[in-house]
This record gives sequence, C-alpha cells and structure tokens, in this order.
Amino acid sequence: LNAQNREHASADTIRWPNGAGYMNGAYMPVTEVRIPVTDWGYRRSDATYDVVSVWGGAFFRLDDHIKRFRRSMDSLRLKPKESDEEIKAILHRMVGLSGLRTAYVGVDCLRGRSGPGERIHPVNARNYIVAFASPYHSLMSDEVVARGAHMIVASTPRIPQRSVDATAKNFHWADMTRASFEAEDKGADNPVLLDYDGYVTEGPGFNVFTVTDGVVATPDFNMLEGISRLSAIDLCEELGLRCEIRKISADELREADEIFVTSTAGGIIGVSRIDGRIMNNDRPGPISQKIRETYWSKREEGWHADPVNYDVTMD
Amino acid sequence: LNAQNREHASADTIRWPNGAGYMNGAYMPVTEVRIPVTDWGYRRSDATYDVVSVWGGAFFRLDDHIKRFRRSMDSLRLKPKESDEEIKAILHRMVGLSGLRTAYVGVDCLRGRSGPGERIHPVNARNYIVAFASPYHSLMSDEVVARGAHMIVASTPRIPQRSVDATAKNFHWADMTRASFEAEDKGADNPVLLDYDGYVTEGPGFNVFTVTDGVVATPDFNMLEGISRLSAIDLCEELGLRCEIRKISADELREADEIFVTSTAGGIIGVSRIDGRIMNNDRPGPISQKIRETYWSKREEGWHADPVNYDVTMD
Repeated sequence: LNAQNREHASADTIRWPNGAGYMNGAYMPVTEVRIPVTDWGYRRSDATYDVVSVWGGAFFRLDDHIKRFRRSMDSLRLKPKESDEEIKAILHRMVGLSGLRTAYVGVDCLRGRSGPGERIHPVNARNYIVAFASPYHSLMSDEVVARGAHMIVASTPRIPQRSVDATAKNFHWADMTRASFEAEDKGADNPVLLDYDGYVTEGPGFNVFTVTDGVVATPDFNMLEGISRLSAIDLCEELGLRCEIRKISADELREADEIFVTSTAGGIIGVSRIDGRIMNNDRPGPISQKIRETYWSKREEGWHADPVNYDVTMD
Repeated sequence: LNAQNREHASADTIRWPNGAGYMNGAYMPVTEVRIPVTDWGYRRSDATYDVVSVWGGAFFRLDDHIKRFRRSMDSLRLKPKESDEEIKAILHRMVGLSGLRTAYVGVDCLRGRSGPGERIHPVNARNYIVAFASPYHSLMSDEVVARGAHMIVASTPRIPQRSVDATAKNFHWADMTRASFEAEDKGADNPVLLDYDGYVTEGPGFNVFTVTDGVVATPDFNMLEGISRLSAIDLCEELGLRCEIRKISADELREADEIFVTSTAGGIIGVSRIDGRIMNNDRPGPISQKIRETYWSKREEGWHADPVNYDVTMD
C-alpha cells in the first residue's frame, strides 16, 4: 500500500507515508502525536472525535463529518480555537503532507485541563484539536469480509443514552471492549450490543442493519448516527429498497434474512452468522452484497468526493 | 510547596520537583509521559488506574491501592509485565526521584493496541503501565473545605454497573463531566450522581456519606470502593459511630443532618449545602468534622504509612 501511495504523489511532498499528525498548530509524524498523561482528554475520556476516510486521493463526505464533529463538540461544551473551515484545511494539509491516497483520518477535540492554581473544573480548561492520518484499514480482514462476519448478541448492555450521549462520538468503549472479549471467547468476530430494553444499538465501530422479507431496517436510538449508515440509507433509496429507521429487537435481529454492518473502516460488510445461526449458506446475503458493491463502485466514481491537494510543502 | 519539598530531600537526589513519571521502564519528568494518539488506552478509554497519596514523605495504604489496582486490571483482562511488587518499587523510586514529600501519585494500565498486520482486537495488544507523581492537590480548595462543599443531585444518571464495572477504576467520566457542568450552572461546587433507580452512587472523584440521627451511611453499589471510603468506615468504628453500608435514596440524601465525601485528593470533606438547602448553619457538620480531624491527625501520626526512600539516584 505504501509503495502504491508513493507512486501517486511527487517525492518531495511526501513526508510521512506511515502516517501524519497535527497538534498545537504543528504537523508531524503520527507517532509524535501524544497526549499528556494528566490531560482530561485521556484521564477523564473527556473528548470527542470523528473519523473520515480518504479513498482514491479524495475525502468522502468531509462536510458531513465536520458538521457531526461540531455537533459532538457543542454537545460536550468543547470549544477549540479552530473553525470548521480551519479544521477542514488542517485535514487536507495533513493528508497532503502524508502523501497517502487511501487513509483513515481521525480528528479529536480534547478538554485539556485547568492550569496550575486554577480551580480544578472543566470550565477552566483550554480545549484543543489533534488529528492524524494513517494508512486505510478495514474493521475486518478481507477474508472475514468475503465469508461474512460472525456476530454474537453481547450480554453486556450498551451505556445508556441518558448517561453518555452516543450521538456525540466518544471513547467510552468499556462496554464494547468487554463485548469484544465475549465474542472472542465464543469464536465470533464481533458483538452487537443491546440497550436495557433489549433493542439493538450498535457494535464497536459500526452500525447494524437487518433485511427481512426484502425490507431493510436499522435502529433509531442509543447509537452513533454513522455517516456510512447514512450512505447505506441513501443507497437503499437509490436501489428501490424500503429502509425503516426504528427499534429492532434482539429476536428480530436473530431471525433476520440478512444482517450487514456499516463503518467508515470498511464501508458495508455482510454478516453470515448470528449467535451461531448460519444465514445465506454461510455467506453475506444478496441484498447486503448489492449495497456493498454499489457503495464501492460509486466511491470509485467520485461519489461525495473532495479531492486532497497533494501539492503541499512544509512552511 | 515546592520550596518546602526541596528542604526535606538532599539536593542531588531531586530531579523533578514539579512531577516525575514512569513509562516503558524509564523515569522522566511528568510532562514527558504522553500517550500515543492511536493507543486504545486513550482511543477506547481502555485503561484502568489507581491514585495513592504521599503525605509527610510516606505512602498511605499503598498495599490496599495496589491490590485494588490488580483487581481492576484482572476485571478488564489487562496483564502488564510488572508484578505487584515491581509496581510498588516503581512508585517508590518515582516519588524518590521527584523529591516530593506530599504527592498525588497516579498509576495506569493501558491496553496498548495490536501491531501492524495483526488482527485488530484487544487480545492482540501489549498492555503496559505508566505512572506519575505530582504535587499533592485536594479535590476542593481550602476555602471550600472550610465553608463546606455545595452539592447538587445531578440529573444525569451514573453509567450503570452492568455496562461498565464501576469497581474497576476507570476514565469513563462523561456522565461525571456533564454533571459537573450542571453543578457549575447552578452555582454549586460538585454533583452527586444517582443510579437508574434513584439511589446515590458517587461524585466525580469521591464517595458520599450521610449522617442522620447520629448514624452514618454510605452506598453499597454502582460506585468505586474507595480506599478513603474504607478509611472513613474504619474511623466510624474507632469513634464508636454506627456506619451502615446500604442503598441511600436521593430523598434520604437531601434530608440528611450531615453529608460528607471521601477522596484520596483531600481525605474527608464536609458538605454544607445540598440542592440549595443549608445544613449545619452553612458549615460542615460536627460528626463530619470529627471524622476529618481524626483522619488527618492519624495520618500525621503515621497511620498506614509506608515511608518513601528518598536516597535514590538515577542509574
């Protein structure tokens, strides 16, 4: 991948093909972006973030990601000095400096912490942005994507919306991590988490869709409103598929004809097993595959694409 | 404070009086302890920690903290290379190198992340320890401690035990942070969070106690089992006070004769207002003060003290 990336950008502008970063107004290799151990962004997980992909040298739905990122920051009362336009310019410049033609791009806003002598309270912290671009990776390996993911319904319930706003993208993943270990123990690839009423929420890094009798459905509550989820909903409309946004019980999930998940890290990925039950002859279902193929062919064609300017140099 | 600290240790052993740190087998100034932005310890808040205080040149209940830290790590399936004895030796050496006679000492275990080419799953991560010692600070200023803290019952409920194990000390503080802003908006110092059934859990960095008709009580569920909480329970016994460990409703809290909170960052701190209601003539209550004074006088006398060896040099 790196060799391919190098081909596509001129040698004198590629600085950090293994990953570039941004912090405190400066650009640097990704390995140099490091959070102080005393920063509340780490120490209280008091931060929000977004992840946008670069494919074929272009961002995908960058404006949608930045709008969501700003909503997340507002929800948590985080006010960095950079405007939306400045954040976009930073991400463009950072990817440009890396030379990466396909990339996984994270952008975080951290609380910081109050200074010496100040009252210890988040109102006294200076909030700030960090970002990084690293080589693109999928949530699941090519092999898992081809055979379909094996999922379980986790016994750990998702943190409720009333305690932590799931629509403000956050690092509160202890429930997800515990569920990932449960999946591992049961020989599955990934877990799906339910809310306290037994309805489907999301999994670690992805939204969930079911297909039953040709009708697509996805949850409406207690989960991140994913940009890839939005893309899948748009593609259903384009493909003439009915897509319902509503509660989905664990039983409906377990009895679905097909299941697929959506993520910036992989797009649309079909599921072939749920709690050990084999679906679609142990392969991703036909409707899931149709949506996946449409998603990637449209991306190749420049759907919602915002080309990166690779002709950048360090100041 | 720093001037005082310098007096008590020989000049050639003090390296970092503003704070010392430990990471990857090396000792350094606290400002150099920084977490990679891609590390799951930050990026998924996949970490646990403990905080122990140093007072008068000695750790307080170090063994109790290390035992709890190990239980937290086991609960999250974190396995660093250091044994309990090695962790204790690291903390002693780190405080020794700082020269600090009073210190706030944090020790964290982070997940790390899976390496390039490995399947992206926490089972593939190399877990590791970081630590730091900085000048001691209290949860609340001397002025607030003297007049008694002003508390509110927060409208944001605490993350439930079934989603995130509160007894494994963790950085999932978004609920606490939102509640801290609510307290700020209402002109109070700190919030107390309830569980989903309306019972008292804890606040940001402290456990909660009530005193009603001379009987002390503290919650038994969905909160950290604080070492300072344990000390307060022990002191009740020593002072001949009955202390009940059980559910406490929001109404019982609001109608209590006294409230106090416990924290490694400050010990025992009395409360003088709850949801605007003034208690004890707007001062910490007499039983709360008796426990506070006993706590600090016993600490001055070396209660549970484990002296730091300050005669250390860099290798």
